[in-house]
Amino acid sequence: MKKISIINGPNLNLIGMRESNIYGKINFISFLNKIKKKYSCLKFFYYQSNYEGKIINFIHFNKKTDCIILNAGAYTHTSIAISDAIRSIKIPVLEVHISNIYKREFYRKKSFISPFCKGIICGFSLFSYELALLSFIKNFF
Amino acid sequence: MKKISIINGPNLNLIGMRESNIYGKINFISFLNKIKKKYSCLKFFYYQSNYEGKIINFIHFNKKTDCIILNAGAYTHTSIAISDAIRSIKIPVLEVHISNIYKREFYRKKSFISPFCKGIICGFSLFSYELALLSFIKNFF
Amino acid sequence: MKKISIINGPNLNLIGMRESNIYGKINFISFLNKIKKKYSCLKFFYYQSNYEGKIINFIHFNKKTDCIILNAGAYTHTSIAISDAIRSIKIPVLEVHISNIYKREFYRKKSFISPFCKGIICGFSLFSYELALLSFIKNFF
Amino acid sequence: MKKISIINGPNLNLIGMRESNIYGKINFISFLNKIKKKYSCLKFFYYQSNYEGKIINFIHFNKKTDCIILNAGAYTHTSIAISDAIRSIKIPVLEVHISNIYKREFYRKKSFISPFCKGIICGFSLFSYELALLSFIKNFF
Amino acid sequence: MKKISIINGPNLNLIGMRESNIYGKINFISFLNKIKKKYSCLKFFYYQSNYEGKIINFIHFNKKTDCIILNAGAYTHTSIAISDAIRSIKIPVLEVHISNIYKREFYRKKSFISPFCKGIICGFSLFSYELALLSFIKNFF
Amino acid sequence: MKKISIINGPNLNLIGMRESNIYGKINFISFLNKIKKKYSCLKFFYYQSNYEGKIINFIHFNKKTDCIILNAGAYTHTSIAISDAIRSIKIPVLEVHISNIYKREFYRKKSFISPFCKGIICGFSLFSYELALLSFIKNFF
Amino acid sequence: MKKISIINGPNLNLIGMRESNIYGKINFISFLNKIKKKYSCLKFFYYQSNYEGKIINFIHFNKKTDCIILNAGAYTHTSIAISDAIRSIKIPVLEVHISNIYKREFYRKKSFISPFCKGIICGFSLFSYELALLSFIKNFF
Amino acid sequence: MKKISIINGPNLNLIGMRESNIYGKINFISFLNKIKKKYSCLKFFYYQSNYEGKIINFIHFNKKTDCIILNAGAYTHTSIAISDAIRSIKIPVLEVHISNIYKREFYRKKSFISPFCKGIICGFSLFSYELALLSFIKNFF
Amino acid sequence: MKKISIINGPNLNLIGMRESNIYGKINFISFLNKIKKKYSCLKFFYYQSNYEGKIINFIHFNKKTDCIILNAGAYTHTSIAISDAIRSIKIPVLEVHISNIYKREFYRKKSFISPFCKGIICGFSLFSYELALLSFIKNFF
Amino acid sequence: MKKISIINGPNLNLIGMRESNIYGKINFISFLNKIKKKYSCLKFFYYQSNYEGKIINFIHFNKKTDCIILNAGAYTHTSIAISDAIRSIKIPVLEVHISNIYKREFYRKKSFISPFCKGIICGFSLFSYELALLSFIKNFF
Amino acid sequence: MKKISIINGPNLNLIGMRESNIYGKINFISFLNKIKKKYSCLKFFYYQSNYEGKIINFIHFNKKTDCIILNAGAYTHTSIAISDAIRSIKIPVLEVHISNIYKREFYRKKSFISPFCKGIICGFSLFSYELALLSFIKNFF
Amino acid sequence: MKKISIINGPNLNLIGMRESNIYGKINFISFLNKIKKKYSCLKFFYYQSNYEGKIINFIHFNKKTDCIILNAGAYTHTSIAISDAIRSIKIPVLEVHISNIYKREFYRKKSFISPFCKGIICGFSLFSYELALLSFIKNFF
Repeated sequence: MKKISIINGPNLNLIGMRESNIYGKINFISFLNKIKKKYSCLKFFYYQSNYEGKIINFIHFNKKTDCIILNAGAYTHTSIAISDAIRSIKIPVLEVHISNIYKREFYRKKSFISPFCKGIICGFSLFSYELALLSFIKNFF
Repeated sequence: MKKISIINGPNLNLIGMRESNIYGKINFISFLNKIKKKYSCLKFFYYQSNYEGKIINFIHFNKKTDCIILNAGAYTHTSIAISDAIRSIKIPVLEVHISNIYKREFYRKKSFISPFCKGIICGFSLFSYELALLSFIKNFF
Repeated sequence: MKKISIINGPNLNLIGMRESNIYGKINFISFLNKIKKKYSCLKFFYYQSNYEGKIINFIHFNKKTDCIILNAGAYTHTSIAISDAIRSIKIPVLEVHISNIYKREFYRKKSFISPFCKGIICGFSLFSYELALLSFIKNFF
Repeated sequence: MKKISIINGPNLNLIGMRESNIYGKINFISFLNKIKKKYSCLKFFYYQSNYEGKIINFIHFNKKTDCIILNAGAYTHTSIAISDAIRSIKIPVLEVHISNIYKREFYRKKSFISPFCKGIICGFSLFSYELALLSFIKNFF
Repeated sequence: MKKISIINGPNLNLIGMRESNIYGKINFISFLNKIKKKYSCLKFFYYQSNYEGKIINFIHFNKKTDCIILNAGAYTHTSIAISDAIRSIKIPVLEVHISNIYKREFYRKKSFISPFCKGIICGFSLFSYELALLSFIKNFF
Repeated sequence: MKKISIINGPNLNLIGMRESNIYGKINFISFLNKIKKKYSCLKFFYYQSNYEGKIINFIHFNKKTDCIILNAGAYTHTSIAISDAIRSIKIPVLEVHISNIYKREFYRKKSFISPFCKGIICGFSLFSYELALLSFIKNFF
Repeated sequence: MKKISIINGPNLNLIGMRESNIYGKINFISFLNKIKKKYSCLKFFYYQSNYEGKIINFIHFNKKTDCIILNAGAYTHTSIAISDAIRSIKIPVLEVHISNIYKREFYRKKSFISPFCKGIICGFSLFSYELALLSFIKNFF
Repeated sequence: MKKISIINGPNLNLIGMRESNIYGKINFISFLNKIKKKYSCLKFFYYQSNYEGKIINFIHFNKKTDCIILNAGAYTHTSIAISDAIRSIKIPVLEVHISNIYKREFYRKKSFISPFCKGIICGFSLFSYELALLSFIKNFF
Repeated sequence: MKKISIINGPNLNLIGMRESNIYGKINFISFLNKIKKKYSCLKFFYYQSNYEGKIINFIHFNKKTDCIILNAGAYTHTSIAISDAIRSIKIPVLEVHISNIYKREFYRKKSFISPFCKGIICGFSLFSYELALLSFIKNFF
Repeated sequence: MKKISIINGPNLNLIGMRESNIYGKINFISFLNKIKKKYSCLKFFYYQSNYEGKIINFIHFNKKTDCIILNAGAYTHTSIAISDAIRSIKIPVLEVHISNIYKREFYRKKSFISPFCKGIICGFSLFSYELALLSFIKNFF
Repeated sequence: MKKISIINGPNLNLIGMRESNIYGKINFISFLNKIKKKYSCLKFFYYQSNYEGKIINFIHFNKKTDCIILNAGAYTHTSIAISDAIRSIKIPVLEVHISNIYKREFYRKKSFISPFCKGIICGFSLFSYELALLSFIKNFF
Repeated sequence: MKKISIINGPNLNLIGMRESNIYGKINFISFLNKIKKKYSCLKFFYYQSNYEGKIINFIHFNKKTDCIILNAGAYTHTSIAISDAIRSIKIPVLEVHISNIYKREFYRKKSFISPFCKGIICGFSLFSYELALLSFIKNFF
């Protein structure tokens, strides 16, 4: 049975609660539960943290999953440390964003993480996570 | 029956023929045929051009499709005219790229088109197109 | 009888149809007809294209007109080739824009074309074209 | 009877006297007199100053005119204060320049004023003022 | 009874101990006690952390205070994540700095946080906090 | 009896009259009168000018006040001459702004004046002036 | 018999006709005829277009020539699409320019094409083409 | 008898009074008197102003002097309007600075005025003015 | 007996495990043990963390060691907070890097930390730490 | 009999010895001898130096040759002094490079020398020199 | 008897011979002889070199002169090494330029040397040297 | 017996003589003699030059040493030619600096040389050289 990790970065604990015009109104945990049921052939690990360091730890010790879906939130644009962590493991990492980050502040256009991910999906609201999942299931890389 | 347009920009007529380390070895037309069969509930329009002007024309006169999947190739990074064309229509446009453009030359990091697309999918080889399709079918936007 | 050419660049075929908050609601052809009647002492040539190359061709082969009124649209900001075409002819070129381009995206502030035009008129909606025409009639340059 | 103000910024008291290759040889006052006669249906106010502060004052206390034609000269490129003054009033302001400023020093390409004006006309020598006037008379905005 | 939170970011645990030429010699806790006595009509929460993540957490779970006074220290200049946290809550945030940050290294001139705060007070040594407090008490926003 | 000067720069004569969404609706003179009554132990000098030169003069000849509260308006961002004037006197200068200037145009983020002021207060509407006053009264520097 | 293609980009149809101080007075076709006679051992293909897209097409379908001599004109400085086309073929491409582009506008110093060409020859007027030809004949690469 | 004008810009009324480590301790007027006596064969005009506009006026109406010695102070670095005034007259202008401006803040390295002056002398304290004078007397330009 | 602290930043827990082409194959703990034995006259404290905040804490509370050897990893390039922590203590800090960071990504060329360290040693693999140690033992600063 | 000088700049004494993947394996002196024999109608002067100053001297005292072929090596990108030397003589200078410098480090894209040379030839290995020679012989400039 | 050194940098051996529109027609040696006669109370040392290294040497071993007049030519803009040499000696250095370097290429606006010189004189042709001399004689620093 | 070369660049002949606050007070030759005695198992070559060209020569002809310790002084920041020389040899080069160059002028932060050296040691005063030596002796690379 394949294992998949979903990591959410800073402020993403508030999905469904804050700035609903950008992030939508659906709570992430209920979304996750739906996904777990729908893709019951997979084992899911979910981790959210507002700490750069904890995200790095989770990436390091995550070696037994087969794929990581990562929404690093604001750290996408500032964290060389997380991008180094991604490079240090062999598991493919898929970068996702809920909103279309290119429509927003200019400082969200720079990503330290993208060059070391397999692929990037952004702008599809929570469905971005499911598309990443589908790309894994279809076993494309 | 829903209608979907796929537009490929400059040099993408060579998919499967050139730089296979970047673009893979599968011919786009055979990929398209497979997709058409698999998603037979949809009507597909396919258009490839190396001309900026023709791509703009196709976007304009494409008003009856329900969604456009656009890989603008190198014009992604240089064409304000195509980005204006996208803004001028009401149909959602999904930006796709075969390769992870953030891994490549720095000038591929700037996009005039992304801010006006619904979502962006890149780095999943030809499967990027199918993910865009799935996002449309799941009817999320 | 004096001859005058009006050239419209990419997406300007949609004037009166798209983004009416920016470009207004009047169709360009009906505007042109009104102008033709009003200034019946002049012979008009009108050309619109979404192709950079066709605009260059039209500028080259336009040698018999006495003046060109050019709204190069998005190519204003990206086309060194059109600016070279303007330099290569002896006929005065008047640059016009419907909207005030300095109120919009930062990338519309850079123009490759302005330094080689006689004058620039922007922000007066379709009336920008008529002002250019008047400047020609008054025979000032 | 409609009222119109014409404001000229620094060094424009020398029109017709200095650098005639750029600014022409016609004295502004005689030009103004011709204009007044020609458009006798309008009431004109003319103001020239080399002081940034006086130009701001004149813009503020100008509330009863129906339109301002402003050639802010060198302050176009350096004065946030004048651009703030323009924003603080409700009367439309039309920016004019005698020369094609895009042909000249690079520092004349940046304008703090343009984004807050209705329209911009430049490069038509003193006729730029008359074109601005015509745009007002035609009552377009 | 109104509730107010004071959050101090990295290295601010050393106030009164380090670089006294910049930060002064008064210990923050004794300053806080004085303030608490003086403004006994208010309930205070104080939090200091050197962790970006903990500051984000505290901002999130701070929903019942009526105002946050935030000195994010060095994270002011590097943390998009904290600025996102500020945007995600409805409580007004007041930015304070002990020193005049504009007198110091150039990298202290850029702030990710200021645009999302109600107001900024800097350079008044520890009194900056009290001024923020006064602005809250006077109930101005 | 302590003496305090308040200097307002360009366009600030319009406070309460223009762009009320940014600057509020209260007239500065009535605000000033309230302040004078409230802090009757202080002697106030008030000066407003739209001239860079007059502001410099006022700073120079202001040597007998004990403190200057300065809102240099747009000159904050463009005037090295005013910043030199501040450096040339011994009296502490407190910089205030009505609006949060970091929320506005990017060119309002650069200040020539801040590094030479004792402290900066911005974003608290007219209350910014009173906070500066309080910081003076509390005699902190 | 070896085959060689010469491609001229935008405005180069005017060689010998426009800006003779930069491009000289010799018509390209008569130059080409002289060259054909002189190097009769080679088969020449000549193509000129003002369209970015047509140049890309010609590069793609040019697979049977042994070498391409390319003067991309203004597209040299703006076209990532043409540079991608050059990378997509196996035939060596030699970049030529009639004038010394480094003596001209700053925007002619940036080339998207040079890094993917075998060699660059510029500044030798029409003789630049013949030098490229000689380098091919001498069979050096 | 030759006539010479000396113009001092903003804050230079304070020479000998402020920041003596930079500007020295000698009062400008007493310096000027000494100079007048020493070079009694020349007629001197002296003008100091903190107003950009007044400096422009003085440059314009100064047409009967044979040379201008200009220390534009902080306006050196910000005033395109003064640089335009210099270009508008035929009299040679010599730029002087008391301090070595290249040793100071980076923003004092950019000068709008230098390219239009005959020569520049800086760093020789008040003696800079005398050197400029000597260069005029020796009649070199 | 002298005390020395070695601090390793993010991802350096993986030394010897990841990207061995850059970081070598030797495990840091076994390296540390060898060092401890070799320099038994010194007392060592070792600390590794992926958290910016924990590294700051460790620097603060480390006041009793005589020297800190710091490899801040990716935080070298992004953390003003750690650089502030270094400035806040009196103990000399020696910056080390395993790889030659100037050979790698451009964003590794900028260091917030170097200006506040006594010295920098980089590119000598794990031996960089030993060189730092030797510089301490030789008691040079 | 025509005279031609070939000047090679820093490190070019190592041609054929170092980095053969970039510079090839042929020794320059043997190449030169072949060239001398082949073009025996010309008199050759050859000069190589690693000193910027000696190259300047050689350019100055080289007045009796009819043409200079210059490969300034790394000085191409840093030496304003050599570019001034080129401007100071009347003899045409042809710039050559062995490798395609546009394929290499970004700092090799900037040339101080190119704007003052007649033409540039690069990327043709040692044959670049022969092409320059041919352009001279064909007597085109 | 006071001793003075004059150092001329690269290409300045050609004064009076090259680009007379910029540097004039007078030979430097005959100028120097005139100066020597005129100021016979001083002992002169003259040195010209096209070598950066020789200029540094001359500055070092020049310790017995009382003042250095330095025209570093093109090295002004590129040589940190010469600027370091100036800092390493105690003798005042006066920077001179024959032409107004601010009128010329943009790269002549940056000087590594000016911040470490006592004063700068430029634009007065050869008279620049004499002005520097006068400033020394008048014994002002 | 191993051979080691130490190369010092411009102005480093003055070590111990100039700017002792930066470079210390110890003469380099006496330091070198101490080092030679201490490490008598090694054969030393020492070379200092103020000439860029001589340093390049010494690097080239230094092929029989086993290691080069290079302090290129100011050329570190400006010389592409020396960096090319380093790349052209097979011997490891160790970059050293006496002072912490990151604490000094911003232009000392850019190094053309570092990417091609084995390692960098800076800020340890003359002991930097000894550390480099130790790294060689310990035979680590």
